[in-house]
Amino acid sequence: MDRIESVKNQKVKQWRKLHTKKEREATGTYIIEGLHLVEEALKTKEIIKDLIVSEDVTLPTHWNVDQLNITLITKEIMKAISDTETPQGVAAICEFQLQHSAEAWKRILLVDSVQDPGNLGTIIRTADAAGIDGIILGEGTVDHYNSKCIRSSQGSIFHLPIVKGNLLEWLEIYNEKQIPTYGTSLQNGVSYREASPSEQFCLIIGNEGSGVNNKLLNSTSKNLYIPIYGEAESLNVAIATGILLYHLKG
Amino acid sequence: MDRIESVKNQKVKQWRKLHTKKEREATGTYIIEGLHLVEEALKTKEIIKDLIVSEDVTLPTHWNVDQLNITLITKEIMKAISDTETPQGVAAICEFQLQHSAEAWKRILLVDSVQDPGNLGTIIRTADAAGIDGIILGEGTVDHYNSKCIRSSQGSIFHLPIVKGNLLEWLEIYNEKQIPTYGTSLQNGVSYREASPSEQFCLIIGNEGSGVNNKLLNSTSKNLYIPIYGEAESLNVAIATGILLYHLKG
Repeated sequence: MDRIESVKNQKVKQWRKLHTKKEREATGTYIIEGLHLVEEALKTKEIIKDLIVSEDVTLPTHWNVDQLNITLITKEIMKAISDTETPQGVAAICEFQLQHSAEAWKRILLVDSVQDPGNLGTIIRTADAAGIDGIILGEGTVDHYNSKCIRSSQGSIFHLPIVKGNLLEWLEIYNEKQIPTYGTSLQNGVSYREASPSEQFCLIIGNEGSGVNNKLLNSTSKNLYIPIYGEAESLNVAIATGILLYHLKG
Repeated sequence: MDRIESVKNQKVKQWRKLHTKKEREATGTYIIEGLHLVEEALKTKEIIKDLIVSEDVTLPTHWNVDQLNITLITKEIMKAISDTETPQGVAAICEFQLQHSAEAWKRILLVDSVQDPGNLGTIIRTADAAGIDGIILGEGTVDHYNSKCIRSSQGSIFHLPIVKGNLLEWLEIYNEKQIPTYGTSLQNGVSYREASPSEQFCLIIGNEGSGVNNKLLNSTSKNLYIPIYGEAESLNVAIATGILLYHLKG
C-alpha cells in the first residue's frame, strides 16, 4: 500500500489530468469516484489500476480488494483530484474497456453527436436497462469517460460494451445483415409505433439541437418520430431513447 | 422604462432573493432567464411582471413587449441576479400560475418527493409532450419554480397546469371517479405492459432513491414496474416517466 501526502506529488498531478479527454486517450485510463461507482467497477476488478482511498475513510467490509493497488491519500488530495463538491473519499483509476466486436451485436444503439455528458450517461444507463447489446458512439459525441457521464450512467458504463466508430460504415454493415435500422427525426418518418418490436434492431439517436445527421437518415430502413401531443417542442434525447428502446424491445 | 445601475438597488436585492423558495412563496413570483424561456413566457404575457434587459442586448424584433414593464440594467447586475455562468442578458419576473381545478383532469401525473430539480423539469417537459392534463406535486417534491427546474422544463412549466396538493387525497378523488390509478414500484406490481392505454389515467411517480410512498401504493388500482433486461439497477425517474406516459397514452 502506497501513501501520498502532498498534492504536488507526480501521481496526484497525473490523476488530475485525467479530467481531460486528451490525457485519458494518451494513457488509456480514466478516473471514477464515489462509493457506488467504485463498487460497480469492482465487479470487473481487472479494469481497476489504482484504488485511491482517503485516510479518513473505512472501506465497506464486503468489498474484496485483494490484489488491488491501493494508495492512501489525504482529504486535501482527494479534494484536489475530485470534481464533486463533497467527495466521498474513494476513487479509482480504471483502464478503458477492451475492444468489442460490434459485428456480433443484434440490438444496437448508435449515438450521433450527443453533446451533454449527463444525457450520454443517462442514455447508457437506459440502454443497459433495455437490454441493448452495445453502443457505438460516432465522432462528435462527448467522451463517455467524462466523469459527469460516468456518474449519470450509475455504473452502466462498466456493464455495457461501448465503442467509438464511423456510424455510416456501421449502418451499412447492419443494413447488409438485414437488421432493421431506425433513424429518429422530428419532422419526417413514421410514428415509432409503426416499427415492430424485434429481436434485432439498430436505433440511431442524435444531437440535442440538430438531431441525427441527414446522411445517416438517408441510409436507414425507416425513420421514426415520437408524436408530441402537448405544447413542448421536443423531448429530451435521453427520454426519447428510453421510449424508443422499450418500444422496440417489445 | 426604468433603468438601474447599482447592484445595491433594492429591486436588484429583491430579485436575487427569488432564488430561494421562501422568497418565491412570500411574493408569489419567480425569476426566469435566457432568450428561449422568456420567449416561451411571452406566450402567456400576463404572467410577466417585469422584463429585465441588459443594456448590451437587443431584443429579438419579433418579440411583442408592448405594455410590459421593462427595466434596463447593467451587465454586472445581470450577472448578479443570474444563476448561470454566461447569462444571455434577458430575464423576467413572473407570477405563479393561477389555481387550476385538478378535479376536471383526465390524464394526471402525481409526483411524490422527486428531489432533483433537473429531473422534475424534464418530467414536466415530458408530461407536456405526452399530452397530460396536469401535474400534482406532493409534499417533499422540490419546488417547480426552482430555476434549474424551469430550465430543464424548456418552457413547459408555462404550458402545463401544475398544482401542489395532498397526493393521498387526490388519489382517493380519482379512485372515486373510477379513473385507473397506477403506482410505480421496482419490486411489486405488474409489468407496465399489462396496463391498457386509455383516455383516462392517473400515474404516480416517486423519489429517486426510495420510490413511491407505501401509503400511496396501497391505494392504487394497480402498481406497475418497468422490466430491467440488463445489469442496470433501475431507470432514472424521468426516463421511467417517459416510457410509462407514452405507453399509457397508447
